[in-house]
Amino acid sequence: MKYTIILLAVAASILSFKGDHSERVDIHTVMQIKNEGFNNSKVLGTLFELTDVNGPRLTGSAGMKSAEVWAKNKLTEWGLANAAIEPWGGFGKGWEINKNYVAMTAPYYQALIACPKAWTPGTNGLVSGNAVLVKIDSVQDMAKYAGQLRGKIVVMGGMSTEVKPNFTADAKRYTDEELSKMLDWHNEESATNLSQKPKASAPAGRPGGNLRKMVDSFLYAEGATAVLSGGRGTMGTLFTSNGASRAWDAKPVLPEMEMGSEHLARLIRLLEVNKEVKIEMDTRTTFQTVDSIENNVIAEIPGTDKKLKSELVIIGAHMDSWHASTGTTDNATGVVVMMEAMRILKAIDIKPRRTIRIVLWSGEEQGLLGSRAYVKNHFADRLTMELKDDHKKVSAYYNLDNGAGKIRGIHLQSNDEVRNIFESWMEPFKDLGVTTATIRTTGSTDHISFDEVGIPGFQFIQDPLEYGSRTHHTNMDSYDRINGNDLMQASIIVASFVYNTAMRDEMIPRKSLPVIKK
Amino acid sequence: MKYTIILLAVAASILSFKGDHSERVDIHTVMQIKNEGFNNSKVLGTLFELTDVNGPRLTGSAGMKSAEVWAKNKLTEWGLANAAIEPWGGFGKGWEINKNYVAMTAPYYQALIACPKAWTPGTNGLVSGNAVLVKIDSVQDMAKYAGQLRGKIVVMGGMSTEVKPNFTADAKRYTDEELSKMLDWHNEESATNLSQKPKASAPAGRPGGNLRKMVDSFLYAEGATAVLSGGRGTMGTLFTSNGASRAWDAKPVLPEMEMGSEHLARLIRLLEVNKEVKIEMDTRTTFQTVDSIENNVIAEIPGTDKKLKSELVIIGAHMDSWHASTGTTDNATGVVVMMEAMRILKAIDIKPRRTIRIVLWSGEEQGLLGSRAYVKNHFADRLTMELKDDHKKVSAYYNLDNGAGKIRGIHLQSNDEVRNIFESWMEPFKDLGVTTATIRTTGSTDHISFDEVGIPGFQFIQDPLEYGSRTHHTNMDSYDRINGNDLMQASIIVASFVYNTAMRDEMIPRKSLPVIKK
Repeated sequence: MKYTIILLAVAASILSFKGDHSERVDIHTVMQIKNEGFNNSKVLGTLFELTDVNGPRLTGSAGMKSAEVWAKNKLTEWGLANAAIEPWGGFGKGWEINKNYVAMTAPYYQALIACPKAWTPGTNGLVSGNAVLVKIDSVQDMAKYAGQLRGKIVVMGGMSTEVKPNFTADAKRYTDEELSKMLDWHNEESATNLSQKPKASAPAGRPGGNLRKMVDSFLYAEGATAVLSGGRGTMGTLFTSNGASRAWDAKPVLPEMEMGSEHLARLIRLLEVNKEVKIEMDTRTTFQTVDSIENNVIAEIPGTDKKLKSELVIIGAHMDSWHASTGTTDNATGVVVMMEAMRILKAIDIKPRRTIRIVLWSGEEQGLLGSRAYVKNHFADRLTMELKDDHKKVSAYYNLDNGAGKIRGIHLQSNDEVRNIFESWMEPFKDLGVTTATIRTTGSTDHISFDEVGIPGFQFIQDPLEYGSRTHHTNMDSYDRINGNDLMQASIIVASFVYNTAMRDEMIPRKSLPVIKK
Repeated sequence: MKYTIILLAVAASILSFKGDHSERVDIHTVMQIKNEGFNNSKVLGTLFELTDVNGPRLTGSAGMKSAEVWAKNKLTEWGLANAAIEPWGGFGKGWEINKNYVAMTAPYYQALIACPKAWTPGTNGLVSGNAVLVKIDSVQDMAKYAGQLRGKIVVMGGMSTEVKPNFTADAKRYTDEELSKMLDWHNEESATNLSQKPKASAPAGRPGGNLRKMVDSFLYAEGATAVLSGGRGTMGTLFTSNGASRAWDAKPVLPEMEMGSEHLARLIRLLEVNKEVKIEMDTRTTFQTVDSIENNVIAEIPGTDKKLKSELVIIGAHMDSWHASTGTTDNATGVVVMMEAMRILKAIDIKPRRTIRIVLWSGEEQGLLGSRAYVKNHFADRLTMELKDDHKKVSAYYNLDNGAGKIRGIHLQSNDEVRNIFESWMEPFKDLGVTTATIRTTGSTDHISFDEVGIPGFQFIQDPLEYGSRTHHTNMDSYDRINGNDLMQASIIVASFVYNTAMRDEMIPRKSLPVIKK
């Protein structure tokens, strides 16, 4: 009788669900996660603090440092253990904007929408000068401007000045058809080739790479006053680039402003017909003078199983951002969703078998720097494939870094063995729109740091909303762009995946270890 | 034989088309108009000069005056007769922007996208102060701020700070279904009630009308430093309002900046949770010190018929604009289309029976002032219905003022007798999308000045493109927003309507004279 009662109690408390898939899902805990995630969500308040209150978080800036302190305190406040700000290495100069003003003053006055390019100096006081249109597509083009640029404001030409009325909505969600196409095998971006996010590519009108460095040096040597460039973005939105060099020995460059399309196009049209165009500019930027160490922020829910608690489930998101707004959809929303997932799990008082750890990265925008350093320090060297002891202890890493849209599924990163597992874990969330486990890989963000050393690392599929069209690396990436329901949903899905990973008997199956690259 | 030859010659030269409608259309001239309008168009170059080169044209400003000189010279250059800048009366203070800068400096730096509200003073130097959130919905609300605003930057609350992702495209064209619904009788806006354009209504967060005047006086008396208001517009677009009073005896008001939604919403969210927010601002605006007379610009193609040449066909568009951009779709495109229509007719060397006159208005944005004064000076007093001699000589007035979209039809202004005529005139342009002659009236622009004194006045139906969503009274109403094909099409339709009106035996049939209003 006692045995029967025990059996019944065990069955009742587990409430296992065995569906089409063999992977067990604890529906009782799913319900608890959903309840906490939908009915007691803190995700919007957390987002407000990280974006509106803290401001932009360019790696190395004061805003990044304040966010690290805030995150550590927040995670501690929620009862997580071992919260720490963990250094990962040197980075280069810090930089921030202290004043941002530029206007056309002739043929008439027009204040211009613009943003200092990252890691460029300010004008340090009001400067003015005639604008000169400069179009350089090759080294030979530079010669024709020699001796003509001293004291001038350089307007980088080359952008198409034709902007058409936009008949496509800014925001989108994936249709069922698009999601089912995503299931087709397609090697989008090889995880081993990639070093950075989908580039905020050299803006239209700026030659990329080495030619750009040569142009920068040329303009500086010629004594121009400042540069206006860019041209991506419409209706007052502007896209920023990756900026000038942050190296301590970087060659000096001119003050430079990045602009959206309309205002830059107007300057170009006027200059193309030789109208006199005058610009005034007053910008101030600050470079850190001391080489500082950059950090990741860590916290945990310690494991409870004697054997398994030394094993890890890690979730993460990069907390650094670009500088023209508050980096909300890139990537504060990823950060607060991961934080909320931890908060939910702690609030419902789970007893995970494995240790669950959250890491909030910096340096992602400059090349996955924080996550790569962390993986190298703790788990493996991706260049030599020398493994540390803990390499075998990480079951999986989950990442979020594709905007503020809800989760629609996950990329399996060519790991066929996890398909069954993840599809089982997604099953209870079909009515929340989570349907698609694609074999595909995706790149350009922090799960790659794990995947490339043979630790299972995964990035979710998210609805785009306005990510590519309006927010990714723009001056309009602000709190206003989000949908609370999407963030709550994502927090719930992540919490559930993390919990399942922490509870299952086995570690997540691994692909073969990567081969050392020459 | 001679008689036959004459008959044949007459028939050949007229090439009449008698379709379903009894109104004769000269297809040969339609072809000439289309050829000149599509293959030798000057419309884009003209638009560039009026917008990019000339800049904004707020009534009373230097930009308005320079545009008048430019237009007169341009029309003369094209061979039109009797080009003149004709005064219509006093207006109030002129105003322009000479410097426009505002930024949040705490809790961190963020340059703000903003524009001085029309007819407000500048700060005349850099000012700074703490922001205070002010929400005034009624007179009683003001008391709670007494004594708290000295030296402060007032942030007008009341706007909804919730901005959702936008799943609707900015640009649209009318569908066939929408056009056929437009045919239904529907008194959209009574022509007799209207005094202004669809109001750039009191922006969200600013109480309208008398309460607003009281708030303005209160804030000024309390010694606040400046006001930030608005909140309409997304993604870097901001909508401007009709501004402060331009009267010579207007009460003094504070410097005020109008903003789009995101930046204002951020300030409001921070202030709502009592975060310290600091603002710095540096603006300069200039008021004219001498009361100047405002003008309309006129030019003609004189009539050739001995009996009919004293009769008039008038086309027009308002050339004045708002101040945050170059007023392209409102209403430089209307202006350049009307100018191009005249240029086309002159270029193909028509011999109109009646005199064709173009008038480019100012003061439309402030209440159809230029066109109303013109009609009063030349034709009739709308308040007394006292008629001048020339009142009986105007066959029709045609207007364009609904953005940069192509023509889809015309509003018949409840004039049933013109339906047949206009449908005949539209017939050759069905393949250009011109299909819809609706009995409806429309208001808020210069044809009303004619319609309200019993002279047939008509406004075309145009595809919206991005008019309501992005360009009407915004900082993004610039040259970039246009589609060259649409402007060429509109020029051709207008030229054809004008020519037909100048050639037909009879004047356009009239509705009854309006009754004098008390």
